[in-house]
Amino acid sequence: MPPAKPVPPDLIERPGQVESSNGIDMGILPSLMGYMLRQGQLCVYQDFFQVLAAEGIRPPQFSILEVVSRNPGIRPSDVATAIGIKRANLVPLVSALEKRGFLTRAMAELDRRAQSLHLTPAGAEKLRYWHSIVKPHEDRLAERLGAHGRETLLKLLQTLVRG
Amino acid sequence: MPPAKPVPPDLIERPGQVESSNGIDMGILPSLMGYMLRQGQLCVYQDFFQVLAAEGIRPPQFSILEVVSRNPGIRPSDVATAIGIKRANLVPLVSALEKRGFLTRAMAELDRRAQSLHLTPAGAEKLRYWHSIVKPHEDRLAERLGAHGRETLLKLLQTLVRG
Repeated sequence: MPPAKPVPPDLIERPGQVESSNGIDMGILPSLMGYMLRQGQLCVYQDFFQVLAAEGIRPPQFSILEVVSRNPGIRPSDVATAIGIKRANLVPLVSALEKRGFLTRAMAELDRRAQSLHLTPAGAEKLRYWHSIVKPHEDRLAERLGAHGRETLLKLLQTLVRG
Repeated sequence: MPPAKPVPPDLIERPGQVESSNGIDMGILPSLMGYMLRQGQLCVYQDFFQVLAAEGIRPPQFSILEVVSRNPGIRPSDVATAIGIKRANLVPLVSALEKRGFLTRAMAELDRRAQSLHLTPAGAEKLRYWHSIVKPHEDRLAERLGAHGRETLLKLLQTLVRG
C-alpha cells in the first residue's frame, strides 16, 4: 500500500470575506445564502484539510469510505448520487482509495457489468481512525457557534436541502 | 459582445442525501457540518444555475462583478482573496466577463505591473438585472426556512467564518 501523500497546500481554497472590511466593500454578497454557504463550507473544509493533511485525503474520500462502509456492495454510481458528486469525479477518488488498499471493486453478482464496492479490513480500520480525528475537529468548530449553534445550523441545512 | 452561452446541465452538481433514505445509509455524514454545508451550497447553487442559466453565468462571476462594482479599480488578486477563490481560477472568469463587455482590465496608475478592474456601463446594467433576478431566488429558498430562518442561517455562517 503506497504511503499517504499530503494534499499540497496550494490546492486548499481559503474562505473569502463575509463582511465589508480591509477596505473592500463586499456589496450584497454577505446577505446571499449561496455566497455565505460557500464561505462556510470552505472554512470547514480548510480546517478538515489541516486536520487530515497527513492522511492525504480530501473530504469526498472520507464521504465515499463512510458510505461504502455502511452499504457494502454499493455501486459507484449510487455512491456518487448519495453524496452529490459527479460520476466522472468519483472514479479517480475511488481508484486512489483502492490503490491505498482501503476498498475493493468487484463485479456485482447479479449484474456482471456493474461494479460493487467493499471496504477492506485496512479501510475499515482507517475509517475508524478518521472518525476519531474528525470528531474533535467538528467539536472545535462548533464551539464558535455557542450552545445549540451546531444543531440549529444542521437543522436549517437539512430543511434547505430537503426542499 | 458575444451572446451568453448557457451553462451545460452536466456541469451542474446536484446535492446528495442529507438523511439515510432510498435504502442508502449515510452514516455520520448528515451530522457533520462540512458535509451538510456542502449539500446546502450545492442546493442553492443548483437553484441559482437554473435561474441564471439563460444568462450564462456562474456564481463566482456574479461575485466578481459585484465586488468590482463596489470597488472600482480593484486588482484581480484582491478580488480573488475577497471572494475566496484561487487566483488561477479567477483569470478565466475575468477574461470571460471582459469578452462579454462587462468589465475592463487596465494597468493601474501607480503600479504599471498591476491590473485594475472596472465595470463597463453594460456590466453595471447587467449587474442591476442580475440583482433583480437573484432577489426572488433568495426569497423563494428562504421561505423553506420559515420565519427568521435565513437571518439565523446567515448569522451562524458569519460566526463560523469569522472564527
